[in-house]
Amino acid sequence: MRPWIRTRAEATPQAIALVTQDRTWRWADLAREAERTAQGLRGAGARPGDRVAVLLENGAAFVALVHGASLAGVTLVPLNLRLTPAELAFQLGDVDASLLVHGAGAVAAQAREAASECGAQCVAETDLALLAAGAEVGGAFVAARQSDAAWLEPAIDLSAPAAILYTSGTTGRPRGAILSYGSFLWSAVGSAFHIGASPGDRWLACMPLFHVGGLAILLRSVLAGSAVVLHPRFEAEAAARALDEDEITHASFVPTMLQRVLDARGERPAPRALRVVLLGGAAAPAALLERAAKLGFPVLPTYGLTEAASQVATLPPGAPIRADGGGLRPLPGTEVRIADDGGGPLPAGEAGEILVRGPTLMSGYHGRPEDTARALAGGWLHTGDVGVLDADGALRVLDRRRDLIVSGGENVYPAEVEAALRTHPDVTDAGVAGLPDVDLGQHVAAWIVLRPGARADASELERFLRERLAGYKRPRAWRFVPALPRNAGGKLLRRELAALGGEADGPE
Amino acid sequence: MRPWIRTRAEATPQAIALVTQDRTWRWADLAREAERTAQGLRGAGARPGDRVAVLLENGAAFVALVHGASLAGVTLVPLNLRLTPAELAFQLGDVDASLLVHGAGAVAAQAREAASECGAQCVAETDLALLAAGAEVGGAFVAARQSDAAWLEPAIDLSAPAAILYTSGTTGRPRGAILSYGSFLWSAVGSAFHIGASPGDRWLACMPLFHVGGLAILLRSVLAGSAVVLHPRFEAEAAARALDEDEITHASFVPTMLQRVLDARGERPAPRALRVVLLGGAAAPAALLERAAKLGFPVLPTYGLTEAASQVATLPPGAPIRADGGGLRPLPGTEVRIADDGGGPLPAGEAGEILVRGPTLMSGYHGRPEDTARALAGGWLHTGDVGVLDADGALRVLDRRRDLIVSGGENVYPAEVEAALRTHPDVTDAGVAGLPDVDLGQHVAAWIVLRPGARADASELERFLRERLAGYKRPRAWRFVPALPRNAGGKLLRRELAALGGEADGPE
Repeated sequence: MRPWIRTRAEATPQAIALVTQDRTWRWADLAREAERTAQGLRGAGARPGDRVAVLLENGAAFVALVHGASLAGVTLVPLNLRLTPAELAFQLGDVDASLLVHGAGAVAAQAREAASECGAQCVAETDLALLAAGAEVGGAFVAARQSDAAWLEPAIDLSAPAAILYTSGTTGRPRGAILSYGSFLWSAVGSAFHIGASPGDRWLACMPLFHVGGLAILLRSVLAGSAVVLHPRFEAEAAARALDEDEITHASFVPTMLQRVLDARGERPAPRALRVVLLGGAAAPAALLERAAKLGFPVLPTYGLTEAASQVATLPPGAPIRADGGGLRPLPGTEVRIADDGGGPLPAGEAGEILVRGPTLMSGYHGRPEDTARALAGGWLHTGDVGVLDADGALRVLDRRRDLIVSGGENVYPAEVEAALRTHPDVTDAGVAGLPDVDLGQHVAAWIVLRPGARADASELERFLRERLAGYKRPRAWRFVPALPRNAGGKLLRRELAALGGEADGPE
Repeated sequence: MRPWIRTRAEATPQAIALVTQDRTWRWADLAREAERTAQGLRGAGARPGDRVAVLLENGAAFVALVHGASLAGVTLVPLNLRLTPAELAFQLGDVDASLLVHGAGAVAAQAREAASECGAQCVAETDLALLAAGAEVGGAFVAARQSDAAWLEPAIDLSAPAAILYTSGTTGRPRGAILSYGSFLWSAVGSAFHIGASPGDRWLACMPLFHVGGLAILLRSVLAGSAVVLHPRFEAEAAARALDEDEITHASFVPTMLQRVLDARGERPAPRALRVVLLGGAAAPAALLERAAKLGFPVLPTYGLTEAASQVATLPPGAPIRADGGGLRPLPGTEVRIADDGGGPLPAGEAGEILVRGPTLMSGYHGRPEDTARALAGGWLHTGDVGVLDADGALRVLDRRRDLIVSGGENVYPAEVEAALRTHPDVTDAGVAGLPDVDLGQHVAAWIVLRPGARADASELERFLRERLAGYKRPRAWRFVPALPRNAGGKLLRRELAALGGEADGPE
């Protein structure tokens, strides 16, 4: 296929593509910026097939990079802004990124520190324009190859990797899920046929673009010709104002975001232009669903995950919201099955692991054939999430990935935090689980077994984790216990942690 | 993929699927009817992979057959209701149809006559319900194979033939264009991303469902969950009333239809709900475009053809209507190129043959590998239509298939009419072309060279054609001339026919 940004800019050059804090971009503007960005990437030495990492706040530059990557033929690797330099360095090295495009300020220092550890080249986003113009910046040489046909007329191969997004699993090791252009295309198609898509739509995007939920909005937008109203980060007041003043038709929230938006707006009924609020990322409390429904918010609970390019199943528009969050239907083209531990399908009404099949699935985890084979065994994505198909065939999600903690919209994998804690010399065992939190939905709590005679306390462990884990992953509550609950096979029973009690010695 | 009708009926069972003259069908209703129809087809002996021909007026039974075919695994072959029994028999035999489902009344007699000539089995549409119920009707035996898994859980293979639609080419021989499920899916996707698609859309379908323009509406509808308001045939008053009273958001017309709808509505402005009027099938007169624009009709001139599952390029919504009918943009996923006679691409601004590439293209012509190879040479569909890409890359169609006559929305291929005329013993040569017609856009005219001493006149030739050609293909004007204009290579110059004059001896 021709690059989507070109097709779109030719079809509707004057339609609005993007609204940022300081500017409105029409498709012709955005396409020009994407072409410049692609030239900048090439000027910085990126070659087709390279992986280019991105450490940027939400903004027009990020959007131009997403579309520019398709023109330059490189695979984008968006990195989480909240990671530590050590975490960033791991992902840069793991994905073998040739280039890291970063923002200004504190992020730049972080980027340079991470990149120096693994040999990736750093380019400030603001230098891409200079590189595109043919200048020499920071030693990068611009090869102006105007005669190169593949450069002038790039094509999108649907099986080619559009992006690699890091996500941790039950193992605690972050892995890069490879999402092809086909994955994003089919996700956009399934979404269009499920909830509709029109050139007049305006999506509010206040989720980070480095997460699949944010990124997928951009790709739906360029395919369907809808506009994106992009916020640098989620702020309840700003999001509430956008709903009221920016003619927003579609918004994507996680439950804590919606909660705060409703708080910010008071009890005013939902704006008339608003047609869909996709609510994903975590199970929504029944009280929140009820409150939103009362105010007329067209909330559609949705289930998705990185490995399936975002949406998997969504409540169909017009269907009654159910207090149990059920009634979800797979996007057209996607299939959902509930399986027992052996992978065999379970009958309706029985809870088990949610398996997903369809054209939105990742191609695999970058450089991890064994993890890939396990995750995609038999052609089905084994999500680790628990759900049930009701008698009418609709999906109800009972529990996100066994033990997954969702804190302020970010996924925290207990195994990753536990693994980091266990590297401390004083720690013999560690268990991590989520506890209810008014603001965040959940916060991270840790149960620690110390080596006999060891003296580490919560503040020492806090310090220890600071270099190793992003802030949102670090425990906010600590308990020191003599032993952790494990089953006969030695498996940690995280659900029993909260009942343990133990000696508190944390910042709470 | 799962059959689209099932996915749709599960997602939005209570949304409106179809509005016919006497009934409103929700998706749950229509899905039940489609399942019954599939059982009826199997009861009548149709097996997966069979080709099932259909000779039916627009109506719920036709819609149920389209969706039922996907459940039964058969390929639908919709036949033009205006064909003669001889023409029908040719297509039934050519496609090797195992079954012909027909309507009541005159159509039934015609169907039986045609089927008897080529050994296809006939089933009245009204008998399908009985067959589904397990009865024996007309000798057909019902094999109730409830245990057959492929029956209970059919799947759609995107490369499998969904329908075969007959279209004549420059050779005058009707050929069956094989359209896969993938062709229709991509057509719906491209259309959704070009003009939008929402579950709340309501399409007015008053074009025959046996043409690709009508059929494609049904498949877009089941995929996007939009409703179809189906008229048994085009009547200007009824269409005008539907626009005003049925909350129609989308309509598909050929220019003569739009003309008559505007005449019927007088000078009232366009209904507010109407968002898109796709105008295809023939070049639209500038005066019509201007008149429609003045009244606020959101007309989008469109170019499509059977071999590409309908839409190829359409004016983007919001773009200014151009008097020359230009500014058309290919659907996302579809590419258009202008080629010289040797197939080489021509630069912008130069007129040549329109070539089309993309996932909506037919798989080929049924049973005609040579025609297929010629039509799809190099992976591009050679349309025979003439167009130009303007400097901004937009398509302007100059002329439908060289010499194609579009009369009242039906395509008439001069070569087919000429071939029929030349079989008359008194005719040594015949040329056919279109002449301007206030009601039909064009009507068919014939220039005849008689054998010396022959006595056949217009009424004799009229009689002769009646058994061989559908009414809309038969000449309304006749001229008897001593010779036809041919070039040095002997090729008939149809464009010079009108200037010939000659002795009139026709019904005019």
